[in-house]
Amino acid sequence: MTRSRLTDREAAFVHAARLAHLATASERSEPHVVPICFAYDGFRFFTPLDEKPKRVDVRELRRVRNILATGRAALLIDRYDDDWSRLGYLQIRGRALLLEPGIAEHGHAVALLRGRYRQYRAMDLESAPIIALAPDAVVSWGTLDALSPGPEPTPWSESPSSRS
Amino acid sequence: MTRSRLTDREAAFVHAARLAHLATASERSEPHVVPICFAYDGFRFFTPLDEKPKRVDVRELRRVRNILATGRAALLIDRYDDDWSRLGYLQIRGRALLLEPGIAEHGHAVALLRGRYRQYRAMDLESAPIIALAPDAVVSWGTLDALSPGPEPTPWSESPSSRS
Repeated sequence: MTRSRLTDREAAFVHAARLAHLATASERSEPHVVPICFAYDGFRFFTPLDEKPKRVDVRELRRVRNILATGRAALLIDRYDDDWSRLGYLQIRGRALLLEPGIAEHGHAVALLRGRYRQYRAMDLESAPIIALAPDAVVSWGTLDALSPGPEPTPWSESPSSRS
Repeated sequence: MTRSRLTDREAAFVHAARLAHLATASERSEPHVVPICFAYDGFRFFTPLDEKPKRVDVRELRRVRNILATGRAALLIDRYDDDWSRLGYLQIRGRALLLEPGIAEHGHAVALLRGRYRQYRAMDLESAPIIALAPDAVVSWGTLDALSPGPEPTPWSESPSSRS
């Protein structure tokens, strides 16, 4: 049975994760996979094109060419443990597209990414497209309880005086 | 420049890794990605079809259907660290096929997998096919020095009295 929404438990697993893996394929069915940082807003996953070094035009990146050609991506968030009773993963397959700089959704994604990753606060995310992935098939397996290491503190928890 | 051989440093990174991510795609360019355990013999990567639960016919697994349809797979081995100067990955793209139980290469792969993962020593790997991936494009990025956690001890190092 295919579902496109995450359960609360799956969403908690997602929010605790620092890393995901993004798979795409060319029009000739050649698969490609890269590690990514990401944010999730309850509906879509976002990952920036912060490729280092910046020499490369992001539109030449294989993941970008594949998404532009096929409109598809798959994302995996998992936990490895040498105790195999504790393995777990969440796999998302869905429709992918590029959010262009300047549009409102792009700004929304940048804010989410900077909330999750302190490192992005000092980086230029405004000038490159962001990949958005809308799930249309969600599968999880194994143990999805707390990941280690935990998430970074949010900007709010870093500054107790600003708590409402 | 495309190369199909790993450097010594890349091979050391591979041998230290416990986990990889395997991407495949359907004939319709729909990508798929799963976490895998694997072994590498210097030429090919091997991963068993030890799907749990065993209710599923392994030939119905999406990765298997995709490989049978396209003959292609991509594999990623990476290290995440919140210190982004320490990120690193190795990506392999290549030709994939199934090794059937009973052939010599299958036994070779089983022995390698059991050498790397103690968990496989008590599991039936003999009766299901094993995926083999022969690299034809190798790309690495970032910091490839020692992964954490390290590899499991080999059978020899577990039993000091048997050391030669």
